[in-house]
Amino acid sequence: MSLNSFGHLFRVTTWGESHGPALGATVDGCPPGVHIDESMIQQWLDKRKPGQNKFTTQRREPDQVKILSGVFEGQTTGTPVQLMIENTDQRSKDYGDIMDKFRPGHADITYYQKYGIRDYRGGGRSSARETAARVAAGGLAREAIKSIAPDLRITGYMTQMGPHGIDRSKIDLDQINKNPFWTPDADAAATWADYLDGIRKSGSSVGAVIEVIAQGVPAGLGAPIYGKLDTDLAAAMMSINAVKGVEIGDGMAAATLTGEANADEISMGPDGPVYGSNHAGGILGGISTGQDVVVRFAVKPTSSILTTRDTITKSGEAAEIITKGRHDPCVGIRAVPVGEAMMACVILDHLLLHRGQIGENRGIIG
Amino acid sequence: MSLNSFGHLFRVTTWGESHGPALGATVDGCPPGVHIDESMIQQWLDKRKPGQNKFTTQRREPDQVKILSGVFEGQTTGTPVQLMIENTDQRSKDYGDIMDKFRPGHADITYYQKYGIRDYRGGGRSSARETAARVAAGGLAREAIKSIAPDLRITGYMTQMGPHGIDRSKIDLDQINKNPFWTPDADAAATWADYLDGIRKSGSSVGAVIEVIAQGVPAGLGAPIYGKLDTDLAAAMMSINAVKGVEIGDGMAAATLTGEANADEISMGPDGPVYGSNHAGGILGGISTGQDVVVRFAVKPTSSILTTRDTITKSGEAAEIITKGRHDPCVGIRAVPVGEAMMACVILDHLLLHRGQIGENRGIIG
Amino acid sequence: MSLNSFGHLFRVTTWGESHGPALGATVDGCPPGVHIDESMIQQWLDKRKPGQNKFTTQRREPDQVKILSGVFEGQTTGTPVQLMIENTDQRSKDYGDIMDKFRPGHADITYYQKYGIRDYRGGGRSSARETAARVAAGGLAREAIKSIAPDLRITGYMTQMGPHGIDRSKIDLDQINKNPFWTPDADAAATWADYLDGIRKSGSSVGAVIEVIAQGVPAGLGAPIYGKLDTDLAAAMMSINAVKGVEIGDGMAAATLTGEANADEISMGPDGPVYGSNHAGGILGGISTGQDVVVRFAVKPTSSILTTRDTITKSGEAAEIITKGRHDPCVGIRAVPVGEAMMACVILDHLLLHRGQIGENRGIIG
Amino acid sequence: MSLNSFGHLFRVTTWGESHGPALGATVDGCPPGVHIDESMIQQWLDKRKPGQNKFTTQRREPDQVKILSGVFEGQTTGTPVQLMIENTDQRSKDYGDIMDKFRPGHADITYYQKYGIRDYRGGGRSSARETAARVAAGGLAREAIKSIAPDLRITGYMTQMGPHGIDRSKIDLDQINKNPFWTPDADAAATWADYLDGIRKSGSSVGAVIEVIAQGVPAGLGAPIYGKLDTDLAAAMMSINAVKGVEIGDGMAAATLTGEANADEISMGPDGPVYGSNHAGGILGGISTGQDVVVRFAVKPTSSILTTRDTITKSGEAAEIITKGRHDPCVGIRAVPVGEAMMACVILDHLLLHRGQIGENRGIIG
Repeated sequence: MSLNSFGHLFRVTTWGESHGPALGATVDGCPPGVHIDESMIQQWLDKRKPGQNKFTTQRREPDQVKILSGVFEGQTTGTPVQLMIENTDQRSKDYGDIMDKFRPGHADITYYQKYGIRDYRGGGRSSARETAARVAAGGLAREAIKSIAPDLRITGYMTQMGPHGIDRSKIDLDQINKNPFWTPDADAAATWADYLDGIRKSGSSVGAVIEVIAQGVPAGLGAPIYGKLDTDLAAAMMSINAVKGVEIGDGMAAATLTGEANADEISMGPDGPVYGSNHAGGILGGISTGQDVVVRFAVKPTSSILTTRDTITKSGEAAEIITKGRHDPCVGIRAVPVGEAMMACVILDHLLLHRGQIGENRGIIG
Repeated sequence: MSLNSFGHLFRVTTWGESHGPALGATVDGCPPGVHIDESMIQQWLDKRKPGQNKFTTQRREPDQVKILSGVFEGQTTGTPVQLMIENTDQRSKDYGDIMDKFRPGHADITYYQKYGIRDYRGGGRSSARETAARVAAGGLAREAIKSIAPDLRITGYMTQMGPHGIDRSKIDLDQINKNPFWTPDADAAATWADYLDGIRKSGSSVGAVIEVIAQGVPAGLGAPIYGKLDTDLAAAMMSINAVKGVEIGDGMAAATLTGEANADEISMGPDGPVYGSNHAGGILGGISTGQDVVVRFAVKPTSSILTTRDTITKSGEAAEIITKGRHDPCVGIRAVPVGEAMMACVILDHLLLHRGQIGENRGIIG
Repeated sequence: MSLNSFGHLFRVTTWGESHGPALGATVDGCPPGVHIDESMIQQWLDKRKPGQNKFTTQRREPDQVKILSGVFEGQTTGTPVQLMIENTDQRSKDYGDIMDKFRPGHADITYYQKYGIRDYRGGGRSSARETAARVAAGGLAREAIKSIAPDLRITGYMTQMGPHGIDRSKIDLDQINKNPFWTPDADAAATWADYLDGIRKSGSSVGAVIEVIAQGVPAGLGAPIYGKLDTDLAAAMMSINAVKGVEIGDGMAAATLTGEANADEISMGPDGPVYGSNHAGGILGGISTGQDVVVRFAVKPTSSILTTRDTITKSGEAAEIITKGRHDPCVGIRAVPVGEAMMACVILDHLLLHRGQIGENRGIIG
Repeated sequence: MSLNSFGHLFRVTTWGESHGPALGATVDGCPPGVHIDESMIQQWLDKRKPGQNKFTTQRREPDQVKILSGVFEGQTTGTPVQLMIENTDQRSKDYGDIMDKFRPGHADITYYQKYGIRDYRGGGRSSARETAARVAAGGLAREAIKSIAPDLRITGYMTQMGPHGIDRSKIDLDQINKNPFWTPDADAAATWADYLDGIRKSGSSVGAVIEVIAQGVPAGLGAPIYGKLDTDLAAAMMSINAVKGVEIGDGMAAATLTGEANADEISMGPDGPVYGSNHAGGILGGISTGQDVVVRFAVKPTSSILTTRDTITKSGEAAEIITKGRHDPCVGIRAVPVGEAMMACVILDHLLLHRGQIGENRGIIG
């Protein structure tokens, strides 16, 4: 019910704004006995951190996480874990031009209309900085998963930048960490580098598609109707800043298939059912099949661009706006670790939910 | 937290299976004083009812709703409204071939793996019959909305069937009720009739895309981070049977846009901000802008087809399966009123949430 | 969040009014594979049923439960269980005098002030008939508990009627089913019979105290801060109609104790810690100790009495009121199975919650 | 669902332990535009602060609150408010004797049994220090209430210490701030001073009863069945450390009343209904009547005493224990501001809930 929370049993509430003293995640319901320290969480924040190459904003934020509660002698205690990230640079700079004008494509206008408050300093609560808190919570979720499903692996990568998609026949997960775009197609990475350089130099921005897969998910996670695994994944991904679409398995393209093409045929393998294809994205009826869980989401281009746009001021007067400053030409790049974090939180939550309602596995085939 | 519930303040819990005595929706949190009777709900159930033309399953289910509680002398009392639909035909027929075999692309295997129960009679809880309960709840939501936002209008329609999309320049909402596909493009309706007839005769099935719009939504609905309007809409639509993708505004295509193209420019109109375009689908930062709220979702083809597929039995033996019987060649048709119902429930819920936290509108522009 | 729901994982939503077509409980999150049929639930409803002796209202309501969903071939499926009880006598009788007057001590005035609806036919949603739905849900909870904690036993009984308390040295749980008051003190039963007969004949009513104990509860159930076992028990009992006080262990009398007297000393037994006393009522820091969980609650006298009281009408005019008809001289009697049901629901919920977050027992002593 | 959260719309999640770096409250759902600064919250923390006189623990904790988010230019923004209190003294001191022994009447044994973690440094999450976070959240709630119900006033006071109760005929709310026990009976204060001095010197401890009233609560707050105002208050108070009983209005004594005595007669006053008495404690059917809302709760004596008690160690060996150090002879004193804070949070939550579901007042009498 809490507006800023997600999850059923593993429940994450994020708090904080881009220009306040700090932001963070209050994580409730984490199993006890999970071995964790700040460095294990920091590695994921570092992946999301800005300023690592010319393709992300040049702001310098160390995004250093502190564990304030819920961990004792290197283990979670089962009580709330508070993960705090202090905002190192919260000076009130000169916002000048932007102060009273709404930015087309930005949430400043709707936040003002809803709350009657104009936080002109930056995105405030709507800033993508909020996602740092999710990445921290996701880092904890990853460690907690290890003790329940040790073979489970979560991997995110970019599959499209602007008009340029990857060639799926060239996917090599080992490539992901070898290019600044977290893409598994090395050739695409080369193309995108040129393309994005042009976008950046022209002061423009561009959207992207990110795919996140979870391998080794046991069959049986998820439950009808609003506890479906795909329902929760859709909500988790759509809640990320700038996301406009979410797909499971074949996604929107499922509309074009016939029943024959869509049916993932089943045979019996040594460890249970084996599927001939994965149009379903690892989820049938909201419940995991044991195949890879496959989620994709589209991130729109950031609204901060160097081209003049028509807008209005708080008092309703017509105006023109141009957003100077250091911004991400493709915010989708930094959305990769965020998508991974949301996947980790959702999967852990469903591992706990399943164990709570069902206990041990019940329906063994074969 | 309830697995079979959705909504924050207007909270709907659906219950029931395809072959039990009844199914329904327990609706909690409805405002008091809403004028309602069974016929006002029945009209929407009739829209979803099977057997209305050759393009939907020929099963005959009257789907008659009964109000069991929460309404007194034609008005809601503010206490839970129980909407029950009795299953008129729940005889145990001969399931023969299907009884022990899992159907590729169907949830019977994951339900068995999760719960250890094999309800061989039909889809059980995973059956699309469950959506009748949502449509009933949506009918109540529509009436409740009228007393809060009288000009709000919700409309669903089909924009794609298999490989055939509509021509957006031909959209005419008045056409929706004039063809069996609820499509606003009369030419598409003609094409689809031929196409689907072929699908039906060959015992195949096909997917579809449905779009639902809400017009007249006041600015300011939705809240960070898991109470975002688009987060809740994504979850609501993804929770519908067979849905594999959800889009807001430009959806997945937002990935291909530049920042300039994506920015919906703003000017001042007589009643507040006016936008030059609606790439955002009426939602920025999770909060409604006052523009049309636009949601799309893809429905996969039904798994019930006349072509033989490879599968396994409960005991893990290889088998072939073919699903005889009366099925929908394009279940997407009947998903239109379901999508509308989910939109109605989500919008009403957010009208109440906004009123609860904020009270009156606060941030007036101009 | 749902106003008419309780429980975290085992989640019960009750619905229905005293004079509508039916009432019931929608139970979500029940484990699959629980063996259940209507008779196993009916036995508890029969215990609560009115008209069984001269000390309860002479209304005749069979209170027959029907399982509408969630059970297949005698086992729960893991999906929502709908338990419906039809109201057999819902005729609009002549309410005459009561129709426009508020009853002192009754919820009719606050319901009207909140909802603006005057359901003059009876208590409507505030009627104690609602508790039948809880008893039904509790019957299911009892069966589900058996598969998880087979030795767990829940017992309710009356410890006080009006000014007359039991003698705790005479408690004999075998006596409970041998008197119309469900009291474990046979001598008290004799005294109360005379006392209550006088109350009944004079058209008066009287309050009572009910105690519910759960034996065999494993140590470790409950969690901080709002998931404490005693927090949930307090809410569960206070939510029962007419309850004005809830106690755990020594309850209000704990205020009079010194630290020495209150400390339940610990020694080591063959199966774990053993306590020298149970002032704590089986709960420390919100978590069960393994001792008997002991809850008590006070039920106020019913407001339906034959003595004239001053009141006002809906239009604010002064009036006198007297409530004729068949009412319970001591509603506390019928609250015994209701208290047991709430205990069963809360304990089951916490068994599931604990299993979800923690899995197996972790902190073994000795 | 979150274990460490409470509230529906105004939702408070507390986090932190007695010996970690910090503790606090994450407050979600606060209305925007509430004027607030740290000093307005600090005043309530100061009331709860230890070491103010010889009757509370001599530990020195400044309990200084910091607002980390959700407030901009002196007003709440409508997004989560993070209230953090740093633990100034978190050194690992010599716990010696206590390290491996469980304390009778303390939660250390159940925490260990549940979580398998032994935080020997102090109470950990079960420490009463957690209530500082609630007091901070309550301070914010009080300010938010002012903008919705300006005349609403919340007052807590002690009505019993050990065996010594107040004389209700001597209640004078102006006395509350004039004695170290927050009692409205000046004579009782004098008696208690002597009594508690004896308890303190003997190294013992004693329980207490606290009463909290809310004046000026509008009629209509609360809703069936698990959203009842008294249900939420019972849970709120029972969730406070060491509380063993909760009463509304006449509380447990309601059991002794007849229907005539219990009926609060109604007449019409200039501003609506007026009641001749308040046995109901301002709540009928879970909904406020407009009278004073009256809640009482009993606090058991602290388990930290200088008398030797029998116990066991983590490995199950018999042991004796004595708790040295600086402890509260009557923790009930410091529970007064905690009870007030919980009342403030619950009332605000219900003000928002009512506004959400109902909007304006509906059922006007007269």
